[in-house]
Amino acid sequence: MKKLTVTLAATTALAALPGLAFAQETAAETPDITPYIFTTLLFLIGGFLVFWMAAGFAMLEAGLVRSKNVTMQLTKNVALFSIAAIMYWLIGFNLMYPGDGWLITGVMGPLFAVTSLEPVGLGADAAALDYASAGSDFFFQLMFCATTASIVSGTLAERIKLWPFLIFVAILTGVIYPIEASWQWGGGFLSEMGFSDFAGSTLVHAAGGFAALAGALILGPRIGKYKEGRVIPMPGSNLALATLGTFILWLGWFGFNGGSQLAAGTVGDVTDVSRIFANTNMAAAAGAVTALILTQLLFKKPDLTMVLNGALAGLVSITAGPLDPTLFGALWIGAVGGVIVVFTVPMLDKMKIDDVVGAIPVHLLAGLWGTFAVPFYTADTSFVTQIIGFAIIGAFTFIVSGIVWLILKATMGIRVTEEDEINGLDMAELGMEAYPEFKAG
Amino acid sequence: MKKLTVTLAATTALAALPGLAFAQETAAETPDITPYIFTTLLFLIGGFLVFWMAAGFAMLEAGLVRSKNVTMQLTKNVALFSIAAIMYWLIGFNLMYPGDGWLITGVMGPLFAVTSLEPVGLGADAAALDYASAGSDFFFQLMFCATTASIVSGTLAERIKLWPFLIFVAILTGVIYPIEASWQWGGGFLSEMGFSDFAGSTLVHAAGGFAALAGALILGPRIGKYKEGRVIPMPGSNLALATLGTFILWLGWFGFNGGSQLAAGTVGDVTDVSRIFANTNMAAAAGAVTALILTQLLFKKPDLTMVLNGALAGLVSITAGPLDPTLFGALWIGAVGGVIVVFTVPMLDKMKIDDVVGAIPVHLLAGLWGTFAVPFYTADTSFVTQIIGFAIIGAFTFIVSGIVWLILKATMGIRVTEEDEINGLDMAELGMEAYPEFKAG
Amino acid sequence: MKKLTVTLAATTALAALPGLAFAQETAAETPDITPYIFTTLLFLIGGFLVFWMAAGFAMLEAGLVRSKNVTMQLTKNVALFSIAAIMYWLIGFNLMYPGDGWLITGVMGPLFAVTSLEPVGLGADAAALDYASAGSDFFFQLMFCATTASIVSGTLAERIKLWPFLIFVAILTGVIYPIEASWQWGGGFLSEMGFSDFAGSTLVHAAGGFAALAGALILGPRIGKYKEGRVIPMPGSNLALATLGTFILWLGWFGFNGGSQLAAGTVGDVTDVSRIFANTNMAAAAGAVTALILTQLLFKKPDLTMVLNGALAGLVSITAGPLDPTLFGALWIGAVGGVIVVFTVPMLDKMKIDDVVGAIPVHLLAGLWGTFAVPFYTADTSFVTQIIGFAIIGAFTFIVSGIVWLILKATMGIRVTEEDEINGLDMAELGMEAYPEFKAG
Repeated sequence: MKKLTVTLAATTALAALPGLAFAQETAAETPDITPYIFTTLLFLIGGFLVFWMAAGFAMLEAGLVRSKNVTMQLTKNVALFSIAAIMYWLIGFNLMYPGDGWLITGVMGPLFAVTSLEPVGLGADAAALDYASAGSDFFFQLMFCATTASIVSGTLAERIKLWPFLIFVAILTGVIYPIEASWQWGGGFLSEMGFSDFAGSTLVHAAGGFAALAGALILGPRIGKYKEGRVIPMPGSNLALATLGTFILWLGWFGFNGGSQLAAGTVGDVTDVSRIFANTNMAAAAGAVTALILTQLLFKKPDLTMVLNGALAGLVSITAGPLDPTLFGALWIGAVGGVIVVFTVPMLDKMKIDDVVGAIPVHLLAGLWGTFAVPFYTADTSFVTQIIGFAIIGAFTFIVSGIVWLILKATMGIRVTEEDEINGLDMAELGMEAYPEFKAG
Repeated sequence: MKKLTVTLAATTALAALPGLAFAQETAAETPDITPYIFTTLLFLIGGFLVFWMAAGFAMLEAGLVRSKNVTMQLTKNVALFSIAAIMYWLIGFNLMYPGDGWLITGVMGPLFAVTSLEPVGLGADAAALDYASAGSDFFFQLMFCATTASIVSGTLAERIKLWPFLIFVAILTGVIYPIEASWQWGGGFLSEMGFSDFAGSTLVHAAGGFAALAGALILGPRIGKYKEGRVIPMPGSNLALATLGTFILWLGWFGFNGGSQLAAGTVGDVTDVSRIFANTNMAAAAGAVTALILTQLLFKKPDLTMVLNGALAGLVSITAGPLDPTLFGALWIGAVGGVIVVFTVPMLDKMKIDDVVGAIPVHLLAGLWGTFAVPFYTADTSFVTQIIGFAIIGAFTFIVSGIVWLILKATMGIRVTEEDEINGLDMAELGMEAYPEFKAG
Repeated sequence: MKKLTVTLAATTALAALPGLAFAQETAAETPDITPYIFTTLLFLIGGFLVFWMAAGFAMLEAGLVRSKNVTMQLTKNVALFSIAAIMYWLIGFNLMYPGDGWLITGVMGPLFAVTSLEPVGLGADAAALDYASAGSDFFFQLMFCATTASIVSGTLAERIKLWPFLIFVAILTGVIYPIEASWQWGGGFLSEMGFSDFAGSTLVHAAGGFAALAGALILGPRIGKYKEGRVIPMPGSNLALATLGTFILWLGWFGFNGGSQLAAGTVGDVTDVSRIFANTNMAAAAGAVTALILTQLLFKKPDLTMVLNGALAGLVSITAGPLDPTLFGALWIGAVGGVIVVFTVPMLDKMKIDDVVGAIPVHLLAGLWGTFAVPFYTADTSFVTQIIGFAIIGAFTFIVSGIVWLILKATMGIRVTEEDEINGLDMAELGMEAYPEFKAG
């Protein structure tokens, strides 16, 4: 989502009228109003849809953990979004878009302006960006930062302590994500290199997946998950919630990918947004159907959690390039995402990497695939560059996250006690059950 | 939702200015930009709201089945939406709007273009429709097709096998719905006859209801539902989910009915969309209140599932004509929907037609009522034509669906074994419980 | 949300062109089209988001009551919204905006027009407001009225009878809310006094809180809640639902506050809407984080229900003035909301005021704080006037609500029998359990 200056077709059309020279000068200002409003609305609508994804992750994860850890998972999800909202304002946005730093200091009222309680004039804000409101842009960008953190919480569920997790979230959303995302969307070296990641298969999803992977390796698997070479299933406590979460994410993804067009003020732009909506939906559907058929063929029984993750993997897969593929392109790109999930979820288990909700297959591996697949449909991109860009982001996020996890482990510890883990984090850390009246079977 | 060409008031106004002949020629092109964008946004926003209805049906149905069948019901709902998304692209859209077939082949990248991996130029798409993006139109129409399938899954819950159901869904969304809907919205003979169905009381809701009815008759009731002349209640396992599902559907319906205005680029059009929103809400409210009062009067205890179905019946009732009634009109039309639900749910049980969630009363019977009621408020419509149109759609959908169900029954069987039904479809067909830790009482 | 006439920058710009006098006359009409559409869309999108809050309250409350009262709480929430929708149309809107009364009688088809079944012409409606569709305005305003009622149901849960509660709702939404809101938003004496309540910290949230408080005092606490000087915890049955409800409310609040800008047709207006979105999100995040940290410090264990209520209190706090604060302003205003919740929830318990979901701290007390805080950032407002306005609204709502509750208590009784309360309202009043298969622990 590199920032673009919108060129308005209407302006050009009017400028071509020699007989209307006087009108032309004024009109050159006037027609910008409508595109500005449309693009601002795109950010606001896209932004509230991506906000809604925070609820989707919360429900998905709460549904896939055991009931003794549900309150904790819910707490983590509400808290991580809230912390992301504060950290991205405090540090992240400025780090990510240094050129726009003054937007925040000058207009949105940041840290540096705290001594002033005066409201900031609207005129300044109106002028801050020439294609949309700075506030709407900040609102939209913030939601992507929060999504990155949401991805981590699922993988590490059922054994990580609350506070170290939240400290990691603060660092991820305040520093790690803004830095790596700035390399592409802040006009950094990746974008100059020709790397292409339209809405964040790498920058958001794989980055979240790498942060989760680093955590999972350092944290270790849940007690009893891998026993004598066998994988012990620990079924989620509420598949209705998990399904609701998936539908919420699917809905929010229209804003995630569609809003990343970053413009809605011309026929070309809304036409593009429409293509993105249709492609995003198709990739999700293809991922779900693929996982459904594959689990039937491989395991003789369709697996709902695989179907849900298949839909999500389809969504992640199309996110790097949701605009250019044909609908058939979106279908097969999403379908490969579904294949990836079905084959890599068991593979992670073989490697004893305990990913409670399957976030690493869905976000990291399908993110890799989606990033790689961009040149099939998008001109002026290269498979090699895509891989290099992915590797750079992956290495950076994985290494820095790993260092942070190790420091947290060494200082305050990141894992609950064995007893607390067995009894469940809800009673041990929070003293509050999510379903106090529903007896465990 | 017959496709319309939008006439822009502004164009006319400008054309009336003789002194601006030169500007007029250019301006005649220019002002179309804004209406194009507005109508595209209407399709996208309406479309994502109707997408959300898929989650609504999933939650409603998951809440109204017994816990041993919840995973299956969730699986069916995710799968049916995904299959609908693929089938409507593969066959449906072309069947429904044959004149627009080239939109898909030429622009959206369909089956026939699979050999080409080249992205399709945007210019072509921009030109495809003159009033909105073809992609947004496809996205919006697809959601209606999926809704038709969602209606069927509730009625047949707790006893139908997964795969025959999904094959039926593929045929319904790829062929049956597109054909019958084309008769009206594709400019077919029903629209020429003067039949009126603004957003689909007949074409979507009753059609889904007829497909469900055919299935229910051929499939038979659940084991133990009707015993020695008595109806055995089989209460839903999670009324919170069912209520959530109803709220989701209510929300999505604003997109369903409002988006069916198919235009938002003029004062008249958005004013119409607003009337539709207000009327849709009123009809739902009236249906709910009516069911609440009626169940209190008849059974001495208000019945939440009746209230939920009353709201939905109110929504279905107003769907054939949400624009023209006054708010009082919406109120009484919706209220009659509520009455229909309260009286026909027990009636179906007397006929031993086992409709698990009440979809036939809500979608078929309230759909009949809503279709019939159109001429009370809409000029140039006739009660007789409305009934004829409804009968034609009903007969076609019922007969073709019945044939498909019979073929499926004869070939692969459509019903799970008695043992599997008693144990629940979740363990028998999927090996996965929705709430593994919540003990059955 | 006082009604405003939108001034269009473009109109002024064009009017300044002497050489285009002829065009100017026509153009003065033409540019109004686009702002009219934008503002109408703001009402519709804002309206459906606030509608969604009805689902949020339903889920929050259903999650925070014990499982034996869940069906009742769901029934109340569906019914109260539906009744609000009817009463606000029947009486409320006219009472609140007497000058716009004819909108309803003349255009929307109200009570007085029931004898006519003729559809009302669109031209009339188009002319009804000059800045947006009357239907969209009605739709948006209605949702605020319904929100006021939603607040009451949570406080009085688990012991109030269904029908007296619904009668109170009818009076609240038909009469009490419209009267008090008209004093500010209908152009009444409070607005002339200089009182400032942008989106309803006082008019909606505190008013709902006062109606709830009056009810709680007259109804008394639940049996067993206060015993020998101790407060007996009665934990909510489903914290996943409560969290979902909070996320829904947070999402809906973007429409609540953003839509209250009442205009989206100029650069200045959408820029303002964007600031409101960003501030609203920040206040919620700050409220949640504050409650998280405070409960950790005070009780050594973070408390999820406090975190959820902290987010909601942050939202209520920013609602009186979401536009003018800087983001840092929104942060500290929201954070104070979180502090209020953590300290006043136990305080109410000490006073033996039994507020099942914490609605009085969240809506009344954070509403007081948010109203008071307006002059920190908003010019031409005064702390004294804010307090006076709040006191007037509070006294009126509390006294009139109290009288209605007392009359209901004296005539039909408002409380279920002791036996019914102990057994749960679901079986006693409705004969239907929300989770019939999940055994109570």
